[in-house]
Amino acid sequence: MDKTHSTRKKVYEALEHGFDGSMLSKLFSGFIVGLIILNVFAIVLESYKPIGTAYKTEFYVFNVFSVVVFTIEYFVRIWVSVESPKCDKTTPIKSRVKYLFKPVSLIDLLAIAPFYLSFIFTIDLRYLRMLRMLRLLKLTHYFKGLRLFIDVLKKELPSIGAAIFIMGVLVILSASVMYSLENDAQPEVFDSIPSAIWWSVVTMTTVGYGDVTPVTFLGKFIAIFIMLLGVGIVALPAAMLAAKFGDELRTRRELLEQEINAALEDGVITSEEQSTIEKLSQSIGISADELEQAILNYNKNTTCSVTCDSCGKVLNVNIDKA
Amino acid sequence: MDKTHSTRKKVYEALEHGFDGSMLSKLFSGFIVGLIILNVFAIVLESYKPIGTAYKTEFYVFNVFSVVVFTIEYFVRIWVSVESPKCDKTTPIKSRVKYLFKPVSLIDLLAIAPFYLSFIFTIDLRYLRMLRMLRLLKLTHYFKGLRLFIDVLKKELPSIGAAIFIMGVLVILSASVMYSLENDAQPEVFDSIPSAIWWSVVTMTTVGYGDVTPVTFLGKFIAIFIMLLGVGIVALPAAMLAAKFGDELRTRRELLEQEINAALEDGVITSEEQSTIEKLSQSIGISADELEQAILNYNKNTTCSVTCDSCGKVLNVNIDKA
Amino acid sequence: MDKTHSTRKKVYEALEHGFDGSMLSKLFSGFIVGLIILNVFAIVLESYKPIGTAYKTEFYVFNVFSVVVFTIEYFVRIWVSVESPKCDKTTPIKSRVKYLFKPVSLIDLLAIAPFYLSFIFTIDLRYLRMLRMLRLLKLTHYFKGLRLFIDVLKKELPSIGAAIFIMGVLVILSASVMYSLENDAQPEVFDSIPSAIWWSVVTMTTVGYGDVTPVTFLGKFIAIFIMLLGVGIVALPAAMLAAKFGDELRTRRELLEQEINAALEDGVITSEEQSTIEKLSQSIGISADELEQAILNYNKNTTCSVTCDSCGKVLNVNIDKA
Amino acid sequence: MDKTHSTRKKVYEALEHGFDGSMLSKLFSGFIVGLIILNVFAIVLESYKPIGTAYKTEFYVFNVFSVVVFTIEYFVRIWVSVESPKCDKTTPIKSRVKYLFKPVSLIDLLAIAPFYLSFIFTIDLRYLRMLRMLRLLKLTHYFKGLRLFIDVLKKELPSIGAAIFIMGVLVILSASVMYSLENDAQPEVFDSIPSAIWWSVVTMTTVGYGDVTPVTFLGKFIAIFIMLLGVGIVALPAAMLAAKFGDELRTRRELLEQEINAALEDGVITSEEQSTIEKLSQSIGISADELEQAILNYNKNTTCSVTCDSCGKVLNVNIDKA
Repeated sequence: MDKTHSTRKKVYEALEHGFDGSMLSKLFSGFIVGLIILNVFAIVLESYKPIGTAYKTEFYVFNVFSVVVFTIEYFVRIWVSVESPKCDKTTPIKSRVKYLFKPVSLIDLLAIAPFYLSFIFTIDLRYLRMLRMLRLLKLTHYFKGLRLFIDVLKKELPSIGAAIFIMGVLVILSASVMYSLENDAQPEVFDSIPSAIWWSVVTMTTVGYGDVTPVTFLGKFIAIFIMLLGVGIVALPAAMLAAKFGDELRTRRELLEQEINAALEDGVITSEEQSTIEKLSQSIGISADELEQAILNYNKNTTCSVTCDSCGKVLNVNIDKA
Repeated sequence: MDKTHSTRKKVYEALEHGFDGSMLSKLFSGFIVGLIILNVFAIVLESYKPIGTAYKTEFYVFNVFSVVVFTIEYFVRIWVSVESPKCDKTTPIKSRVKYLFKPVSLIDLLAIAPFYLSFIFTIDLRYLRMLRMLRLLKLTHYFKGLRLFIDVLKKELPSIGAAIFIMGVLVILSASVMYSLENDAQPEVFDSIPSAIWWSVVTMTTVGYGDVTPVTFLGKFIAIFIMLLGVGIVALPAAMLAAKFGDELRTRRELLEQEINAALEDGVITSEEQSTIEKLSQSIGISADELEQAILNYNKNTTCSVTCDSCGKVLNVNIDKA
Repeated sequence: MDKTHSTRKKVYEALEHGFDGSMLSKLFSGFIVGLIILNVFAIVLESYKPIGTAYKTEFYVFNVFSVVVFTIEYFVRIWVSVESPKCDKTTPIKSRVKYLFKPVSLIDLLAIAPFYLSFIFTIDLRYLRMLRMLRLLKLTHYFKGLRLFIDVLKKELPSIGAAIFIMGVLVILSASVMYSLENDAQPEVFDSIPSAIWWSVVTMTTVGYGDVTPVTFLGKFIAIFIMLLGVGIVALPAAMLAAKFGDELRTRRELLEQEINAALEDGVITSEEQSTIEKLSQSIGISADELEQAILNYNKNTTCSVTCDSCGKVLNVNIDKA
Repeated sequence: MDKTHSTRKKVYEALEHGFDGSMLSKLFSGFIVGLIILNVFAIVLESYKPIGTAYKTEFYVFNVFSVVVFTIEYFVRIWVSVESPKCDKTTPIKSRVKYLFKPVSLIDLLAIAPFYLSFIFTIDLRYLRMLRMLRLLKLTHYFKGLRLFIDVLKKELPSIGAAIFIMGVLVILSASVMYSLENDAQPEVFDSIPSAIWWSVVTMTTVGYGDVTPVTFLGKFIAIFIMLLGVGIVALPAAMLAAKFGDELRTRRELLEQEINAALEDGVITSEEQSTIEKLSQSIGISADELEQAILNYNKNTTCSVTCDSCGKVLNVNIDKA
């Protein structure tokens, strides 16, 4: 029993520590990442008929092999999920069921389910291929850099939502305007508002295929304003994200400085404090050089001494830099 | 009389408090928002002829039903408008007339007027459909997140105006240049400066349909510079908005910090102060976690100690961080 | 003699104070701006043949009238140019010649010169129309908001220059690569590197007309990377401008705060200081409300008092907010 | 021997100091830059057949001349490379071999190697032309402004990497979706996933040639979401760069201020300190005017006075602005 537990812990570390863990963990991560990428290449190549038909068996064998590996990985991950530090180990079954419904686990299921379902239901080969492509999402296990990304997106969601709402209204309004104006001149192109919505989105995202364009004078006249407005509205979410990213970077840097100040309060940085700060600064994308400079700045700038000329006394003022 | 007033107050609260009000207010808001969205879907679907002709009666009945609901809503809103806290209750007629000309009330009128006008004037069905689409604007009653959006746009209007002026000059100048250069080679495409303006806008917004393109060597040569310049000019308003959004976020955060400082001056946050700060921080998109940290920071960082070497006394200085 | 001087001064004020000057100055500015805009409309309309031929005489008369007005304006501006405060009044001729070569004066000349030159040289009507369009640039007399715009562009020129240099290199390199790859498959489209440069610019600015596209597999494969790279490089100048605009706004706000601090040093704002600050804050786009708040902040935050508990003394600390 | 060394030093200064060095260095730099640009023009013109065949000999002679010059330059640069201050002069051969593998030296080799290799291997003329275009990269010797550019890009690489990873996943997923949906309707256009990837990239970068567009209802419906998402994702790297550029500018400005403070500590700026600060401020794109103002600000704002009410003494506190 005890042995099972220690094995489970080792397996957990090999699977979940990714590229930051032990050599075994790195090797396993590399194997899974490689297999995912090979799968994507295989699906892309297979879709090209001359290659797809010539190497049909090879592609099938590789697919079965991948599914087997991913299935084993899926069940082992469920088995070891109780080793997670956040997990309540007293109710293993309950916490495993909980793990089953986590996004990361659902993505793993999504990578293998289509294969097994294809035996029960008849799925068109093309759609099956599309579903197999979802294996790409398994990469999220290993790409930790996405966290900061998703954090900022989440925080910015309300203002992006406002921009998307405005854009949606603009798309639908401009589509109905263009439909009214162009339906007479091009009844087969602007045959309904949905067709006009296609024009609206293609135009306002500045993609501009040119498959649908206004031809009447009034249509072109109104389209000019829609383009100019649309371009601005499309640029807004980017502008907001830019502002938020800048803000986020600054906030995190301040946090780091506070940590450094707290660590330096006693004049010496212990090796423990050092490692804490280094981890934090790495997680927010500050290089070792910048970190060192920040620590030096602390010593230089955050304390200044006031010397009274009349009596020669020295007052130390601690100033917290904004 | 007194009963009328209390009824009016209740109706006012049910109508104008939106999704932040009582259960009744939430239900009513949900009903109106749902009806607006259903209307938009109906208009879009109806414009698609196979569906539009098959369900003609159903669409007509739904439209009449919507107009009736929106008409009742319109008049009730006018009736209860005197309950608004900003309103002078001593002259109900005058303040109701005032309300009639507010943007929010005009939008409500716009949503129903085309239906009634279609009995008096004969309006083309397509244009009527377009006018009915304006019901979308009624959603502004419920989307409070737009306020921050509109605030920033208003503040940034002068510099965006400058960018649009420059763009307008560039569009017209480049159009007349291209007209001069391409008119000989493509007399039917670049037949006049207005046609060339169409090319200019399509190009400088990077939409690039490809329905009008230069074909002469000189035309292409000049077009290359117009594209490169145009892309930069189009990017400018976005850049300015980005800068302003960042500025706005920072300014609002400072305001919040001042409010927190004011509340914390006596050492304790009363439940009243707590709710004021929470409301403010919510309105500017700061999460509860960030708020808590800001309050903690107040206690940690905004005080610095001055130690006098002569007497050893420590003075605490409150510093308002920028 | 004295009377001439005072007349000249009055004319100078009517012409050069624009929309900020006296009623006469405003009327005159409105007249000139209106005439410029009418000219642009006339040239655009005239280029449309059915209208151009039907109202040929009217357009000619209007053009002659405009040229006469602009010619008189041009010479009057030269005459009164010595009234400029920057001008050395002891050498009127010399300073007038100096004025002649200022950009603002050259633009005025450009607006009328083509008309007179068309009597001497035979200029194609289309090119003449294009040259007449340059009258648009006369608007720079009245659009003061452009100054901040041009300031930022000037400061950012070196980094934008670097981005443009990189883009230029990328355009030429990708053009020669695509020429090599596509020349065999489409000898008439990718017939030379200049044609490939046209494709490069159309693609990297994301205009994408579709008149020239790669068709070979390798051509498309390389084009994918060129697009992704190109989009990023095109976005860079915008990103840099965004950063610089934010910086500029902050710097100017700091400047304003320094001015306010200087004015408030004696505890009271004189009406003179008030007007100076208001002018400055207007010029940098800060509203009256924000200004008032900034002044209030000064009183609240920039001085803090330290009370020593042991002896009850109060020390006032002036803190300069960053 | 000594004479050789002093000659080598002079040659080093003429070659490597670029446009910042002596008159000889400037002339030489101008000659090389001019020759590179002429080469680019020659290759572009030569690719245009009518000109290419008419002046075949002239182009060949110019190419041979350029290769001779660049070859001499290449070997002289290797010879003088030991004069570099970073170079260990005791082992000239070893340090020259080291120089050979530096990027700047490899670029120089790349500019001449194709010519010599074309005698050994038969290279298609078009590919040879493409390789000759790499001479453009030699300009990096002289464009120092690129350093800041590359610095920021390097620092921002991880977050740009995340954005590119997300974009890559989105491109491949949307390609396989569109392939599934459109393959039936347009079997010759969407014949395989690689073809669909071409559509994905053309769409998500908003280039939008229009050579491949969805035609089915479901295809267009899904494409609308891909466009809206894609545009946002493409805008992200730009947003991140904007944030980082702003941050970088601010950090460098702070660094400069620290340097100024350090220099001003003794109250006087020595001519040596002056030149150090000027160099630094130039390297980070701060104009002389701004620099002067920063120095003035130091004297004005970075000191604040503490007045003791008990004894009336005024203490000056130097505060390092954040």
